[in-house]
Amino acid sequence: MQKKKIVVLGCGFGGLSFVKACKGLGDAADILVVDKQNHHLFQPLLYQVAMAGLSAPEVSEPIRSIFRRRREVRTVMDTAEAVDLALREVTLSIGGVERYDYLVVALGGTTSYFGNDAWAEDAPGLKSLDDAMRVRRGVLTSFELAEAIDDDRRRKELITVVVIGGGATGVELAGAMAELAKRVFRRDFREIDPTDARVVLVDGGDRLLSAFPESLSASALRQLESLGVEVRLNTRVDAIDGRGVDLSDGSRIDAANVLWGGGVQAPAITRTLGIELGPGGRVVVGPDLSVPGHPGVFVIGDIADATMPDGTKAPGLAPAAMQMGRQVAKVIRKEVKRGEGIGEPGERPVFRYKDKGTMATIGRSRAIAWVGPLKLSGFFAWLAWLVVHLLLLIGFRNKVVVLVQWFYSYVSFRRGARIIFGRANETLARRAETGDPRCENPEQTEKR
Amino acid sequence: MQKKKIVVLGCGFGGLSFVKACKGLGDAADILVVDKQNHHLFQPLLYQVAMAGLSAPEVSEPIRSIFRRRREVRTVMDTAEAVDLALREVTLSIGGVERYDYLVVALGGTTSYFGNDAWAEDAPGLKSLDDAMRVRRGVLTSFELAEAIDDDRRRKELITVVVIGGGATGVELAGAMAELAKRVFRRDFREIDPTDARVVLVDGGDRLLSAFPESLSASALRQLESLGVEVRLNTRVDAIDGRGVDLSDGSRIDAANVLWGGGVQAPAITRTLGIELGPGGRVVVGPDLSVPGHPGVFVIGDIADATMPDGTKAPGLAPAAMQMGRQVAKVIRKEVKRGEGIGEPGERPVFRYKDKGTMATIGRSRAIAWVGPLKLSGFFAWLAWLVVHLLLLIGFRNKVVVLVQWFYSYVSFRRGARIIFGRANETLARRAETGDPRCENPEQTEKR
Repeated sequence: MQKKKIVVLGCGFGGLSFVKACKGLGDAADILVVDKQNHHLFQPLLYQVAMAGLSAPEVSEPIRSIFRRRREVRTVMDTAEAVDLALREVTLSIGGVERYDYLVVALGGTTSYFGNDAWAEDAPGLKSLDDAMRVRRGVLTSFELAEAIDDDRRRKELITVVVIGGGATGVELAGAMAELAKRVFRRDFREIDPTDARVVLVDGGDRLLSAFPESLSASALRQLESLGVEVRLNTRVDAIDGRGVDLSDGSRIDAANVLWGGGVQAPAITRTLGIELGPGGRVVVGPDLSVPGHPGVFVIGDIADATMPDGTKAPGLAPAAMQMGRQVAKVIRKEVKRGEGIGEPGERPVFRYKDKGTMATIGRSRAIAWVGPLKLSGFFAWLAWLVVHLLLLIGFRNKVVVLVQWFYSYVSFRRGARIIFGRANETLARRAETGDPRCENPEQTEKR
Repeated sequence: MQKKKIVVLGCGFGGLSFVKACKGLGDAADILVVDKQNHHLFQPLLYQVAMAGLSAPEVSEPIRSIFRRRREVRTVMDTAEAVDLALREVTLSIGGVERYDYLVVALGGTTSYFGNDAWAEDAPGLKSLDDAMRVRRGVLTSFELAEAIDDDRRRKELITVVVIGGGATGVELAGAMAELAKRVFRRDFREIDPTDARVVLVDGGDRLLSAFPESLSASALRQLESLGVEVRLNTRVDAIDGRGVDLSDGSRIDAANVLWGGGVQAPAITRTLGIELGPGGRVVVGPDLSVPGHPGVFVIGDIADATMPDGTKAPGLAPAAMQMGRQVAKVIRKEVKRGEGIGEPGERPVFRYKDKGTMATIGRSRAIAWVGPLKLSGFFAWLAWLVVHLLLLIGFRNKVVVLVQWFYSYVSFRRGARIIFGRANETLARRAETGDPRCENPEQTEKR
């Protein structure tokens, strides 16, 4: 029996679950994991890194460390540039061309600015550790600058944060930012009063977290407002220019930090496949998650456009990506072990997303959770969120540290990771000179 | 009684100890702390951040958080550009001009390349978190690249690290690097054998750690060699060029990462004082640590050139900086409380450094310690080092986390912070294109 070659692009929740569930193939297959980062990222806690509650290594784990005992798994930090479905080849930036028998594309989404890509410069999204560090550096540096200068108008601008998008990311960022400013910073500053800090959450729809029932959206709104967040619904962004935003109601908010909690789109590589793409560049897959006409190629996670038997689409959530990864692993394991080559899509099980509940956290003791008929909000929803996320972290080496850290934050209202690095001082100096408070690209000026 | 204004430049061990020991002045004085970073850095553990054993927030604490309960202390993240001793004024980059009654200059040293400042680009020093992150990123990315490419000569270059300088920093870096490569990475890589990794420590003198007795230097050498470090004594560096080093014995070492554990010099601001400077730009101070002719101005820590009554110089060590800070605080407290203005240097106590022992760590269970007549090496020296550093961390919020982390590393030989961020992928891609393996300035290419 010839050894099969399985190539996995991306090691987020989908790719990681796939490779974990492929365990036990032993000598029957080689697995190559390709990721542009050296780590798997625990994305649900990324907003905590951005808001200085956790450090980067606490929410990430080196991929090759996760698979260290799996001799059949090879990991490379590299980027896939193109996939040739006819030749069954992936072209990597560094490693050259890799042939595959099975290909699992699990690349995850990138931030979508809905056609306004220029906004990326002034309104960072939140997809990677670099994004999170950029947000953290921008926010912390602005407050430091506000303390050092002597100009009330600019100070106001420096301690204003606008969050765009009322989905889970936007709500989490806005809530954590309000807590950071109004509770954590409260006793730390002398010249500025951090309770003057303004956090504005802007969304084009008529309610927050529109994937949840209306009563929970309303509760999320109340909980955010109780933290002091100004929520502007039915409001779109017309322009972002590095010193603030222009809104569709004609108003302008001057803000040193504008954070993008907006949309998701598939990375450019999906366009090299030469096949049908759905909204946002997602790959339209069959009921078994394979690409039509290419039974050895699967697309899972946020970039899969998967329609389930009941006509609904699989959601872009971590649990869906994990379920997809496990299901595809089951299919491939079975076919590899059978040894008769790549199977027929029609003979494979149909993917169905099992909804075990969704939740969004707003702040300390504040959250909403929706589990079937059960709708929770406030403290108990937050407790549920905490328990679920700690359980999800199991297997992850960081769980003890994260628990200690969180518990500490909980009782003390301090933040462990309020450390600015990445050329903070050069940024600060340049801002003082130019009067430009924006938080973009401090690294560009690095010169030793 | 008029309120006094105390300005402190720098919040390393010297500045921090000074401000802590000034407690209780209440309404009698205002204290302004100026630091170019927003955090105090626990420098003795910085090499652990560089070698991915600890995360940045675990060895640092926001300065304004340390002083949050001290209403008389104001903190600004800013840089002093010049000091006018005659007018008693400090000019800050952002905050403008600040007048002082007392000035405490505790800026700490910067990396000295002994006149070869161009080497800074290819051989990072280890003074700040940015330095440590740069070293970490360079080393981790090189190993990742070595795994991804298919070229034996370049691979060898990528997994070679040269450390320059056989003082405490150089020894700690070399030991930790050898452990990282030969133990931590051992099971993680497939294409490269991390035990092939080469760590070379170069020093111009005839023994390592020349501040210690000869028997301990010899022990440190043996302990390093037992970790697989190649030590080259009596060897100077002639050139560093980004792909390796040329040595004074005519040999050449190709290495993607060259780390500088070399000298220390005073920052440029000391030259604005218009007074006598000692070797390395240090400020020559009187027996009371004040600047001759300016009894209200004190210089403490690494940038003070202080001669003690027995004719020896105070060493550039954290304990010396802390003792200086406490002594100066005592003097200023007394004079402020007495309310008769700035005192006479001749009436103040003379500074004497109390040596409570020095130690250097080499790796897990490997260290040397010298406490009066006691000379320890190996496991017990390491245990002593561990206890002392954990005790020093007390007061620091991170102690529990650091303890957990260390204990975990100790039992598992894994490293918690092996996470690459800061535009790692762009660097990697550029390296693959240009064939240039150096680890410098990945941020310069950042473009979103």
